[in-house]
Amino acid sequence: MKLYSYAVSSASFRVRIALNLKGLPYEFAGVHLLRSGGEQFAPAFVAVNPQSLVPALVDGDHTLTQSLAIIEYLEETHPEPPLLPKTPAERARVRSLALLIACDIHPLNNLRVLKYLKRALKVEDDARDAWYRHWVNLGFTALEARLAGDPATGRFCHGDVPGLADCCLVPQVFNAQRLKCDLSAMPTIRRLHENCMALEAFRQAAPANQPDAE
Amino acid sequence: MKLYSYAVSSASFRVRIALNLKGLPYEFAGVHLLRSGGEQFAPAFVAVNPQSLVPALVDGDHTLTQSLAIIEYLEETHPEPPLLPKTPAERARVRSLALLIACDIHPLNNLRVLKYLKRALKVEDDARDAWYRHWVNLGFTALEARLAGDPATGRFCHGDVPGLADCCLVPQVFNAQRLKCDLSAMPTIRRLHENCMALEAFRQAAPANQPDAE
Repeated sequence: MKLYSYAVSSASFRVRIALNLKGLPYEFAGVHLLRSGGEQFAPAFVAVNPQSLVPALVDGDHTLTQSLAIIEYLEETHPEPPLLPKTPAERARVRSLALLIACDIHPLNNLRVLKYLKRALKVEDDARDAWYRHWVNLGFTALEARLAGDPATGRFCHGDVPGLADCCLVPQVFNAQRLKCDLSAMPTIRRLHENCMALEAFRQAAPANQPDAE
Repeated sequence: MKLYSYAVSSASFRVRIALNLKGLPYEFAGVHLLRSGGEQFAPAFVAVNPQSLVPALVDGDHTLTQSLAIIEYLEETHPEPPLLPKTPAERARVRSLALLIACDIHPLNNLRVLKYLKRALKVEDDARDAWYRHWVNLGFTALEARLAGDPATGRFCHGDVPGLADCCLVPQVFNAQRLKCDLSAMPTIRRLHENCMALEAFRQAAPANQPDAE
C-alpha cells in the first residue's frame, strides 16, 4: 500500500495511526501542502485525488480517499486487531465520537479554511486564532462531557483497546496544542491522549516522526 | 424509534431518507434550531445530545448521534435494503463520497458557523453568502469530477440503487439551491438529484414535508 500523506495533516495522521495499529507496512508518498503553491494542486496529485486533499491510500487497483472511509476499508480488509467494537450500538458510539471530531471540529480549522479567512475575509491573525480555538473548545467540551459521563470510556475512547475514535482524538489534540488551546477543563481527553501516546503505533504516526517532518 | 429532527437540517434530512429507504417507521420529535434562542440548547435536548446538534435517534436504550454513525447503525441493524454495496473497495467509494459532503462541505455552511461569521467576525451578508457558495462550489466541483469520471456511477451515486452517498447528496443540493449556488457546471450531480427526488423515500424526507415545516 502507498499512503499520500503530509506530516502535520491531521487526517493523514489518523490513517497512519490506523495502519500502525493494524501492523500494516506502507510506502510513504509526501505531499507538501505549503511548498511551491501546494503540491496537492500539482497535476500528479490531482490525478490521485481530484479534491486535492490528503490522505489518499493506494491499495492495488484501488485509490481511496477520505480518512474515515480509508480506516473503515482497512477494518474490513484487515479485521485484526479491530478498530471498532462488536455490537452495532457500540460501533455507533465509536463512529459518532470520531465524526464529532472529523465533521464538527477539524473541517473548520483546516488549512484551506484558515487561508480563506485571512485572504478573502481579511480576518486578522488574532481573530483567526480565536476562531480556531472557538471550534476546538466547543467540540472538545461536548466530547469531554460524552467521554467523562459514559462508563464505556476506558483507558481509550471505548474500553481498553485503542480504536477508530482514538485515531481521530490524538491528531485533534495535537492540533489543539499547536494552536495553544486551553485543555485544562478536559481531563478525560488529556488522559486518553496520554494513554494513546504511550503506544508505539501512535508515537510513530506523529508528525515529528514522519519522513517529511520539518 | 424516535428521531429528533429539524425540517431544514441537512444532517436530519440524511437520516430521514435512510429511515424511509429502509421502510422504518419512527416517531418525530421536533427541535427548532431558531425558535426561543434555539431549542437545541434547552436542557431537555442537551440531555439527549450534549452537543446540541440534530439529528439524534433513540432506539430502545440507545441514543445515537451523528448522522453518518446513525445510518451505519441502521445498515447494521436493518440490512435490507442495503445502503452500502458489498465489496470493501465499493463501500470505501460510497463512504468517501458521503464524507466529501459531510466533512468538506456541510460543516462550513452550518447554522452555527454562519452565525459566528456574522456575530463574532462581523462578516457582511454578501461576504457570508460568498463563503457559503465558495465551499459548495469547491466541494461540488470535486464531487462532480469524481461522479462523472467513474463508471461505478449509475442512476444513483453508486450503481442503480440509492444508498448512503445519495442520503448526503440530496440534502446538500437542497442547501445549495436555497442559497442560489450555481449548479450549471454540475450535470451529474443534478441528474442524480433528480433521480433521487423521483423516489417517495426522498420526497417524504424533504424539509417541506416535515411536521415542523414552515
